[in-house]
Amino acid sequence: MGLKLYLAGPDVFLPNASEIGLRKQEICRTYGFEGLFPLNGDATVRGEALEIFHANCALMRQADAGVFNLTPFRSPSADAGTVFELGSMFCSQKPLYGYTSDPRDYRERVEAAFELTEQGSRPRDRNAYAIENFGWRDNLMIIGAIQEAGGTVAAVAEPDGETGTPSLSALAAFEACLRAIHNSVDRNRGEFPQP
Amino acid sequence: MGLKLYLAGPDVFLPNASEIGLRKQEICRTYGFEGLFPLNGDATVRGEALEIFHANCALMRQADAGVFNLTPFRSPSADAGTVFELGSMFCSQKPLYGYTSDPRDYRERVEAAFELTEQGSRPRDRNAYAIENFGWRDNLMIIGAIQEAGGTVAAVAEPDGETGTPSLSALAAFEACLRAIHNSVDRNRGEFPQP
Repeated sequence: MGLKLYLAGPDVFLPNASEIGLRKQEICRTYGFEGLFPLNGDATVRGEALEIFHANCALMRQADAGVFNLTPFRSPSADAGTVFELGSMFCSQKPLYGYTSDPRDYRERVEAAFELTEQGSRPRDRNAYAIENFGWRDNLMIIGAIQEAGGTVAAVAEPDGETGTPSLSALAAFEACLRAIHNSVDRNRGEFPQP
Repeated sequence: MGLKLYLAGPDVFLPNASEIGLRKQEICRTYGFEGLFPLNGDATVRGEALEIFHANCALMRQADAGVFNLTPFRSPSADAGTVFELGSMFCSQKPLYGYTSDPRDYRERVEAAFELTEQGSRPRDRNAYAIENFGWRDNLMIIGAIQEAGGTVAAVAEPDGETGTPSLSALAAFEACLRAIHNSVDRNRGEFPQP
């Protein structure tokens, strides 16, 4: 098996989470990687929150890099658990990659969900909270970390068949992301490029 | 000056962010700590996203512990930037503390924002995405990390005067959190207790 990728994302909340996990691990194999998918541990079955926490931390430590599903989850931003893991793997100085089925930038998503007002030079939402307006896909800590870790964010629009909202599994963007990682590792003689 | 606390939170998006930052630093001094507030750097003025990113990372490295405003932001969960920083400081093995002006647990907040359905043994939202149901205040990675780092989450209900929603600055919960940190450091001869 090749380099190990931790597959972070809100996929674990999907009704067909196991199926999506297996599918993503299969795509990883196609590109020469091993995918570590958080749902696979026994801890999820036992349902003990702290055990799941420790199992996910252990998988992150085993991984050579992180691949983060940044598709917005119950908000204009990525899933909170996924973002926690991004911060943690950034701090371990591992390569980080993102993907999303929602090609809009953060400001556009806030605009779609909340009324917008301009106050002074910064756009603000209906609560007068400032909106980050850098043309980035999410909060600057998320996108800044991926950039600094040498990665990129693959965005491929893919509406969910039933709801029409961006697909939470984001399989098309995942495959685009894996292809990009494969090509960059390939150019770098089998290792992740240094940022 | 005493131990340094990194004051993470969505406070930076408030219209009176600087004022709230100064107020929180004042409360830190009252309890014998130095508060590091992210807005204070020059980077925010220049508005360059990557500079803000690096300035926040530098402040986190300087800090002895992190104090996280987990009040929900544009979602049933904490602000994405705040959660990124929590993951990063967890990985640096620093003590972590949380506070919030919303005393509901995560499931209750999802229930208030989305329709709920039960499918099998797990509660699910209207998109059939599973809802974490551990009686915890947010995603298990967030609360698990704070527990493992020896900290707690202080929750004090404090509605915003104008909107009636939980106050984003959460000053009452912040003060309760600082009091708890002070008492625990005091009992531990001036140092943070080991988890």
